[in-house]
Amino acid sequence: MRTVDWYNGKVRMIDQKLIPWSLEQVEFDSYQAVANAITDMTVRGAPAIGAAAAFGIALAAQQTPGTTASELIENLRPAAAYIRAARPTAVNLMWAVDRMMAIAQNEQASSADDIRALLLAEAQRIADDDVAINKRMGAYGAELISDGDTVLHHCNTGALATVDYGTALGVIRAAFEQGKKFHVLLDETRPRLQGARLSAWEMEQLGIPYDILPDTAAGYYMQKGEIKLCLVGADRVCSNGDFANKIGTYQVAIMAKEHGIPFYTVAPTSTVDLDLHSGADIPIEERDKAEVLAPYGHALVPPHFHARNPAFDVTPNRYLSGIVTECGIIRTPFVENLKAAVGERR
Amino acid sequence: MRTVDWYNGKVRMIDQKLIPWSLEQVEFDSYQAVANAITDMTVRGAPAIGAAAAFGIALAAQQTPGTTASELIENLRPAAAYIRAARPTAVNLMWAVDRMMAIAQNEQASSADDIRALLLAEAQRIADDDVAINKRMGAYGAELISDGDTVLHHCNTGALATVDYGTALGVIRAAFEQGKKFHVLLDETRPRLQGARLSAWEMEQLGIPYDILPDTAAGYYMQKGEIKLCLVGADRVCSNGDFANKIGTYQVAIMAKEHGIPFYTVAPTSTVDLDLHSGADIPIEERDKAEVLAPYGHALVPPHFHARNPAFDVTPNRYLSGIVTECGIIRTPFVENLKAAVGERR
Repeated sequence: MRTVDWYNGKVRMIDQKLIPWSLEQVEFDSYQAVANAITDMTVRGAPAIGAAAAFGIALAAQQTPGTTASELIENLRPAAAYIRAARPTAVNLMWAVDRMMAIAQNEQASSADDIRALLLAEAQRIADDDVAINKRMGAYGAELISDGDTVLHHCNTGALATVDYGTALGVIRAAFEQGKKFHVLLDETRPRLQGARLSAWEMEQLGIPYDILPDTAAGYYMQKGEIKLCLVGADRVCSNGDFANKIGTYQVAIMAKEHGIPFYTVAPTSTVDLDLHSGADIPIEERDKAEVLAPYGHALVPPHFHARNPAFDVTPNRYLSGIVTECGIIRTPFVENLKAAVGERR
Repeated sequence: MRTVDWYNGKVRMIDQKLIPWSLEQVEFDSYQAVANAITDMTVRGAPAIGAAAAFGIALAAQQTPGTTASELIENLRPAAAYIRAARPTAVNLMWAVDRMMAIAQNEQASSADDIRALLLAEAQRIADDDVAINKRMGAYGAELISDGDTVLHHCNTGALATVDYGTALGVIRAAFEQGKKFHVLLDETRPRLQGARLSAWEMEQLGIPYDILPDTAAGYYMQKGEIKLCLVGADRVCSNGDFANKIGTYQVAIMAKEHGIPFYTVAPTSTVDLDLHSGADIPIEERDKAEVLAPYGHALVPPHFHARNPAFDVTPNRYLSGIVTECGIIRTPFVENLKAAVGERR
């Protein structure tokens, strides 16, 4: 079961708001509903929302009138704008929409129906590529994990954050499938608890030994010398290696540096935004304070209490040991090496 | 209303498990019940559990048979041992029990009833002293806060963590009472959410502007340059200034250092344990994983999921800008200056 796929003319997703309590798929029959599912985090994880966006464009094309290519393309623009605006930080969303719209524009000589078919095929390709890319990253990254290690992980970067297999958790999965014996510590990742709810659920499915940690406890286990490696995902990697990821990632990076622990992000090149030259330029989403005060309806404190809820933070490149991509592990100098990797892929 | 007091021959406490939803007092008529209230965190906060322990000994003396002083003292020993074992990390618990037992032993020439009266008076004195000490610390520490500052605070160190007024939040309260205009960011402090539940409730009562932060977001606001000062409490300060405090404190200290932000602990000298020369010697309590998985009965994930729950961590002295005590702000060299401060008090 993929996190996002195309089924019976609709976009189908695992409803991640229900995990770990139940595994259910929901189907969406309009691009607006797909975009809303991205906004409300029915689907989340940078690669997964990229694939969801691609299927959303394919769905829009199926439903958009237009008998000529140019009519269809014109009619697709509002859908593209609507989907792009679903969330601001993960660049995979914009990357997927742009890639889909480029397909349409390159095929102006074709019929509208041909373009509709090409767009669906391209969305399928983005989804299939994602799984293949994750497995390649897993193979590259697995060498970072040794028998006996304890690996710290933040947020969720597993099958649920992607179409399947995962990025940072994909590396952990690949090492586990190679027979390595190690332990995973999962930051619970407040406020939305992706580590406790999603990553722990995935570890349970895969049989990988793990413990959930309150986000306050990672430094404690670093100080004890227990953690040998930190692995996180990314929502946007700048040309210099600065990257945005789930709130709390920056703290893990600082602590890893303080304890001399290697710290890697695992991200496909679709997460690299060569147009942004510094992390300071990445837009950071702020979400509803209710996610802090009453996660998933559990009222921890009264609703009138004040809270802030930035959804991402930026980790400067100097904290990074490397970036695991589908083109291999990228190290300093990041500017040159990231540019080469993205070029290789394109 | 004090966090802990003596009422009608019983030990009365605010039930902190019910805050912020309701403010209720509970009464305990046996020392075992007082110790259990410390263990289950009906009362928490190093100074508050010190006072609770003192009242627990006074209560034990009231209820313990013994017509001679030596009989009474002999009969008090099991109570002292039971209360000392209620929680392992905060030294104020042992400090208060030892101080109470010393009173009894110094009065062997008195009658048992005289000792009973002396013990109750001593417990009252410990409680009254705590409030006075906190106000002195508040006055010393308030100079650290300037108009326009944003102050980061971890856990709860307010009136609820003490008999009244608070330690680190007492400093914040003193600055507010001086008319300073500043903002407080409260780490929610997973797993037990003392920041979100208790500190935010106290800020609401006092009218001090605040926002709750997920523990993952403190580094984000430091990176933005918003935080000018970090204030935390302490559960045990070693002779060299290393100190134990609520899990997550160490992380705040590392981040403060990385951003060049002053980082202070606010702790009465009753929290200083001159017998321990390094933080590595402080016993760290591990609590039930249910506090992580299902805080206050809110099941965030299934109960069979794996989690760890260390309740405290140790911050090495090198991260400390200073220690705010009732004898003034102590700075390096901590060994000499802490010894002098404790001597001054004794």
